[in-house]
Amino acid sequence: MPDSLFTIDAMRAIFSARARLARMLDFEAALARAEAHIGVIPQHAADVIAAQCDVSRFDVDAIENASRNAGNLAIPLVAALTRNVAAVDAGAKGYVHWGATSQDAIDTGLVLQLRDALAEIDADLARLADALAAQARRHATLVLPGRTWLQQALPITLGVKLAAFVDALDRHRDRIASLREHAMVLQFGGAAGTLASLHDKGLEVSEALGNDLRLAVPGMPWHTQRDRLCDIAATLGMLTATLGKLARDVSLAAQTEVGEIDEPAAPGRGGSSTMPQKRNPVGASIALAAAVRVPGLVATMLTAAVQEHERGLGDWPAEWETLPQIVLLTAGALDAMAEVAEGLDVHADRMRANLDITNGLIFAEAAQMALAPAIGRDAAHSLVASACRRASAEGAHLRDILEADPKVSCVLDRHAIAKLFDPAGYLGASGAFMERALARHP
Amino acid sequence: MPDSLFTIDAMRAIFSARARLARMLDFEAALARAEAHIGVIPQHAADVIAAQCDVSRFDVDAIENASRNAGNLAIPLVAALTRNVAAVDAGAKGYVHWGATSQDAIDTGLVLQLRDALAEIDADLARLADALAAQARRHATLVLPGRTWLQQALPITLGVKLAAFVDALDRHRDRIASLREHAMVLQFGGAAGTLASLHDKGLEVSEALGNDLRLAVPGMPWHTQRDRLCDIAATLGMLTATLGKLARDVSLAAQTEVGEIDEPAAPGRGGSSTMPQKRNPVGASIALAAAVRVPGLVATMLTAAVQEHERGLGDWPAEWETLPQIVLLTAGALDAMAEVAEGLDVHADRMRANLDITNGLIFAEAAQMALAPAIGRDAAHSLVASACRRASAEGAHLRDILEADPKVSCVLDRHAIAKLFDPAGYLGASGAFMERALARHP
Amino acid sequence: MPDSLFTIDAMRAIFSARARLARMLDFEAALARAEAHIGVIPQHAADVIAAQCDVSRFDVDAIENASRNAGNLAIPLVAALTRNVAAVDAGAKGYVHWGATSQDAIDTGLVLQLRDALAEIDADLARLADALAAQARRHATLVLPGRTWLQQALPITLGVKLAAFVDALDRHRDRIASLREHAMVLQFGGAAGTLASLHDKGLEVSEALGNDLRLAVPGMPWHTQRDRLCDIAATLGMLTATLGKLARDVSLAAQTEVGEIDEPAAPGRGGSSTMPQKRNPVGASIALAAAVRVPGLVATMLTAAVQEHERGLGDWPAEWETLPQIVLLTAGALDAMAEVAEGLDVHADRMRANLDITNGLIFAEAAQMALAPAIGRDAAHSLVASACRRASAEGAHLRDILEADPKVSCVLDRHAIAKLFDPAGYLGASGAFMERALARHP
Amino acid sequence: MPDSLFTIDAMRAIFSARARLARMLDFEAALARAEAHIGVIPQHAADVIAAQCDVSRFDVDAIENASRNAGNLAIPLVAALTRNVAAVDAGAKGYVHWGATSQDAIDTGLVLQLRDALAEIDADLARLADALAAQARRHATLVLPGRTWLQQALPITLGVKLAAFVDALDRHRDRIASLREHAMVLQFGGAAGTLASLHDKGLEVSEALGNDLRLAVPGMPWHTQRDRLCDIAATLGMLTATLGKLARDVSLAAQTEVGEIDEPAAPGRGGSSTMPQKRNPVGASIALAAAVRVPGLVATMLTAAVQEHERGLGDWPAEWETLPQIVLLTAGALDAMAEVAEGLDVHADRMRANLDITNGLIFAEAAQMALAPAIGRDAAHSLVASACRRASAEGAHLRDILEADPKVSCVLDRHAIAKLFDPAGYLGASGAFMERALARHP
Repeated sequence: MPDSLFTIDAMRAIFSARARLARMLDFEAALARAEAHIGVIPQHAADVIAAQCDVSRFDVDAIENASRNAGNLAIPLVAALTRNVAAVDAGAKGYVHWGATSQDAIDTGLVLQLRDALAEIDADLARLADALAAQARRHATLVLPGRTWLQQALPITLGVKLAAFVDALDRHRDRIASLREHAMVLQFGGAAGTLASLHDKGLEVSEALGNDLRLAVPGMPWHTQRDRLCDIAATLGMLTATLGKLARDVSLAAQTEVGEIDEPAAPGRGGSSTMPQKRNPVGASIALAAAVRVPGLVATMLTAAVQEHERGLGDWPAEWETLPQIVLLTAGALDAMAEVAEGLDVHADRMRANLDITNGLIFAEAAQMALAPAIGRDAAHSLVASACRRASAEGAHLRDILEADPKVSCVLDRHAIAKLFDPAGYLGASGAFMERALARHP
Repeated sequence: MPDSLFTIDAMRAIFSARARLARMLDFEAALARAEAHIGVIPQHAADVIAAQCDVSRFDVDAIENASRNAGNLAIPLVAALTRNVAAVDAGAKGYVHWGATSQDAIDTGLVLQLRDALAEIDADLARLADALAAQARRHATLVLPGRTWLQQALPITLGVKLAAFVDALDRHRDRIASLREHAMVLQFGGAAGTLASLHDKGLEVSEALGNDLRLAVPGMPWHTQRDRLCDIAATLGMLTATLGKLARDVSLAAQTEVGEIDEPAAPGRGGSSTMPQKRNPVGASIALAAAVRVPGLVATMLTAAVQEHERGLGDWPAEWETLPQIVLLTAGALDAMAEVAEGLDVHADRMRANLDITNGLIFAEAAQMALAPAIGRDAAHSLVASACRRASAEGAHLRDILEADPKVSCVLDRHAIAKLFDPAGYLGASGAFMERALARHP
Repeated sequence: MPDSLFTIDAMRAIFSARARLARMLDFEAALARAEAHIGVIPQHAADVIAAQCDVSRFDVDAIENASRNAGNLAIPLVAALTRNVAAVDAGAKGYVHWGATSQDAIDTGLVLQLRDALAEIDADLARLADALAAQARRHATLVLPGRTWLQQALPITLGVKLAAFVDALDRHRDRIASLREHAMVLQFGGAAGTLASLHDKGLEVSEALGNDLRLAVPGMPWHTQRDRLCDIAATLGMLTATLGKLARDVSLAAQTEVGEIDEPAAPGRGGSSTMPQKRNPVGASIALAAAVRVPGLVATMLTAAVQEHERGLGDWPAEWETLPQIVLLTAGALDAMAEVAEGLDVHADRMRANLDITNGLIFAEAAQMALAPAIGRDAAHSLVASACRRASAEGAHLRDILEADPKVSCVLDRHAIAKLFDPAGYLGASGAFMERALARHP
Repeated sequence: MPDSLFTIDAMRAIFSARARLARMLDFEAALARAEAHIGVIPQHAADVIAAQCDVSRFDVDAIENASRNAGNLAIPLVAALTRNVAAVDAGAKGYVHWGATSQDAIDTGLVLQLRDALAEIDADLARLADALAAQARRHATLVLPGRTWLQQALPITLGVKLAAFVDALDRHRDRIASLREHAMVLQFGGAAGTLASLHDKGLEVSEALGNDLRLAVPGMPWHTQRDRLCDIAATLGMLTATLGKLARDVSLAAQTEVGEIDEPAAPGRGGSSTMPQKRNPVGASIALAAAVRVPGLVATMLTAAVQEHERGLGDWPAEWETLPQIVLLTAGALDAMAEVAEGLDVHADRMRANLDITNGLIFAEAAQMALAPAIGRDAAHSLVASACRRASAEGAHLRDILEADPKVSCVLDRHAIAKLFDPAGYLGASGAFMERALARHP
């Protein structure tokens, strides 16, 4: 379980040791009810069992400790549940966990946790995308330097820069929606995935159990076919990468020498234990840390999916803490960036100033494309590149170098040259791209 | 580029150094045509340029070598193309690569490669799933030991075991189909993703370019939003994991002591340089090697997706060889397992014999569930577990131990006990699960 | 923090939230003492501060919660310490954390945890290697099938098989010893690694601080040079891989159809929630799970080591939970396999029986090498390979096929052929290799 | 094999398909000589075999293609060698590959490649460290802003900043030296690691073979104990991380808005296909790409090390391309950064200017520590933090804010305050740390 520094309390609650047992008990209760409904076990026994499937009646630590000898949590949990049921009704205890195997309880319990978790992720994703869309609208025409290879390239708008994130996040929402539709499925197959223990009642019990838990019933059990879980892991991995990119861009923009964007200020936020002047981008730090950590965990899930025969040996247990960690870290990164996006502190003056620091070099492509119709793109590239080198060497403005060059002045007059250096005049489809992305945003 | 041991020739052709340049030249040709169509450059220039976009006119090695100084392949390729065009028509050379940036050519070229590659993967996936479905039908009722934790658990059928793979592979086909629909998109944004170089013609040129290349035009360029590429990587990673599991199961079944399944025999296949008796599972080896290698590469793609601002510095180049490797290794694993599945050598006698080696212990759950209605599941579990221990210790058959136990014989008569040890009598929903999976298989 | 299923209590104690703060407080106390010793702060203040550096005086949860706003644990801890000191002696509070930065406390605290952890790992490694060495001696001449590609190859001894692990584990001990000598170093550099806050006293305070904590003082601070921590991660990753291999071999040997080795039996150990006959290899499962999980975590440490300038932004926090997880999982795997090794349940009868199941094919290389001096290695390979195929096809013993072949009988007489099929006669240097490994074992 | 963009020609030569076979043939030749020397095979046969072990006599592509059916390269190579020997001397052909297994040839061939590769890496590492040490001396007292969390922190010297890399690289050299001493060992164990095929001559042949190849002979074969190879992978992974950090710092310093350092200029280096003004940090890009890619490959090596019994099935082949890729990428990163370090273009004027842009905030800790002896570190922290906020809000210089504060002026006079803002006056142990690192540098 990641520290609270790296995740959010709501997700820590979903994946706590206690909640994990609670969801497994939800499975056991629903199983008893479903089997009573189909007539496999007596209704009375089901009632007694379901009543005992309350996690507050269990010693969570004791069950955890017993798991090392047993090999999984379900064995000591079922044993404890059986004891508790027996204490109430000796006749009912014989019907606990009827026909199920440990993995049915563990996997279905996990799916129930994931169902809650994905709902939370989806809500936070909407919150972040909405915040970024609102910021994009607010700063639709604010011009700042676009940067490639960490160097100034061309002017762009903050609107289009942020809209690109909205566009990507909306794709992630579609992916999450698909997971919620396709990956939230019941696990119920008994010892080897055949439901042999239920003889000819297996399918009926499955349906009733799925209904009870409001989980789709898959075509067959998936004890060692783990692609749906990998899909969750990979989808969150992709989302975290997008969050990491957002955090990277924010932290680069927040550099002392750039100063275009700051994270929202709050008392004590982002201070230093020794440097009084510091306002560290702590939200970005959380998201970047997640973006560094999650890829290795996704790789673990993929490696772990090679599970032997009808139940894996070490691969399956390798998932138990890995997938929750992915979810927890993603949630932490999402929340951190939503907070940043909502309170984004934009410094338009620094953006304007940064557009000026190259002595016009950021408009080199504009100049090239203005010359190209007359002299060809390649010749214009060479001419302007040479002018850029002169401008740098002499500390001169590119405009002045170009104006003084007869090869330029015979093509472009003074006014045309001056227009090339207007940031608002070289934005191309920035506005249209932004509008497209925001129009699609729900 | 993986060795031919690990991939297939068709995929090596798609991702060869030559094909990579050819696809980038396809972009340059289509760009010229599209820009002429919209009226941005002269039609004549476009004709000349398109005619020169033939990879056989280029020195592939020289362009590769020049890339180290330039930082990417597009720069020396565009320079060479410009020289070639100039040699034919000095007037046309000025229109080469008009308005585009290196990444437009590199990314779109990659998408064109991926389009071919995913078609190939999809076809091989269909081939493998069809082969497994046919084998599942053929061996629908063949009983073998189901195994959990590498130990015999319950009887299952080979039909249901193979159908579980068909089920998973069909999910992978859906994922691949989704990628072919959503991820095969044009990259065209110019220097900083704004198409500023095309002024107000950017969107029109984009549409024409997409039409020419038969690629969907996305809402906006995605120079540093790499989630679609990560999705391809992750989806193939999941597929490779499934192939690895199939390979793992085959290789375990092929163990000398198990002997239930062999890979197809062929002269020289799976021999040893020193041991004359060997028939190594070389197909499984290829797929398992891929399943070990691909997760780390998927992690690399996710890590690399945190790309700075409008063009990443080292992250973007980190993708260039990584994503092709994932595709190539997946294709190799797929082909290897398709070959194995088509020629699966099934030894029904050894399956039958293996069902017998535990002196009946594999039927322990059947016995427990037969006793449970009378004495409760938990008491039945204890009783049978104790009988199993005695059977093991004494080298006796579980049936005999149970028959001799009055707590059993008062519940089950001799005939009922004997029936418990019939493998065909404890298969539960195996047949139904198999039928469901095969019914859904296209 | 991994569940107790995956690690040991001693390691959970070393890396608990409480212990983490305690070790950071050890740093703060030692810093105060060292600075008083050098005359940078008053002795009285140091005494007061050191007395307050007792973790039981702090609200661990509150400090954890405050870390999300601050960006790290040291800031709220130093604030709480300052408050606590102020409550006792207002004059002393101004000297808390004098000249240090958060990272000094966090990194040095981590090193103190790692020092304890590596001592524990080393002890458990010795325990495992000793147990395996003892088992190797006990079973020095016990013959079983050597297996390559999961198929029987040649006979080997259990002695040499286990000694190969002793050999590898002793290399790991050397690596751990090297880490304990070279990687357990003080972190002390102040805000930007220059100790500017201590003016000309930085080096003296460093020395005194290192002495106090019994940590080596490195040539310079290592705030963003993380190779020593990566070395710890990678070394434990290698160790875990060796443990995973041991677990893999044990679990393969424990398969129902192989039955050569079982994990030690204990009440409730390795049972199933539904199958009464099960004796699952739960120790191997723990180690295999660790071997699946740790590689991705090692990759995370390497990725995280690319830390910007004088303090990383998200990379450094990415280490905080990752390195402890590696240590905890390694410790759990080590303990699990030590328990397995100490109680290894060896079934010599099954080994003997397994040597017989191939109808002599396991001796094919022996036959080839016996024929090779007369007819050449290549011809002998072909001849014996052909005989193996006949033996398999006809269900005959390889010995009988060879005896009936005049090309064999003209070279080897009946007695010589019979001798080829004696497992004890084809063990080569097994004994010598084992003796070498055990002789080196400390 | 990575493209020439990502590696160096010398390393591509060492790991070419041809060189790989050549090194395996070196093993086969040495094996024949050693066995003749010990008397296991005739000297004449050895002479003939050794003469044929010349890679120019083999069809490299044909052997590669045949490997897919065989499962590895050694089988078709030994077959081809046997044919070639037979064509010269039918009597000698029977002694080819005597007593060896495929893995002996493949692993030893790999070790021979690695021996050359590590020598190359070591030389390039020395070249890089020497270049950085020289730059550190040249710029020993050049002051620039130290940066934490990507924000200006305190002044440091370029000397100490670069010396920290020298320090880390020298640790890597020690690690490489250790690998060259301990990991470059012969692999020779025959089919199952027992050298059974050589009866009682195994150890003698091993010694002679090791002598011939100038490789240390390990205590026992290591067919499935892969820790030495993992150690090479991990060590290079750590080195690549350090190179990635150097590249990260260079590329951040080369940002348009920072402008403190550029990569060396050269015609065409770091240009753009569309932007004439660009001077992209292409060397840093190569190293960063390697730092993104190598961690996943190291994880693959660790995962692959869990190899079954006496020879792994898919794990071993998973190493074949992975370890060479790690070496090749490391070499490319090393060469790229050596070139950068040798030609580092340092802009002292921009460093000076950047120290000024915060209106004195970079000296906030200096002010705090000057006030602390009088009012306590915590009170000084609060006072200066408040002054920093005022300075930022009002656009004033921190010096002026402090001068106007009576709580400051009663402690520090105008002259003392002015001195706080001298960058050269707050460098602490920068010089001493640099001297220590350089003094240790060989």
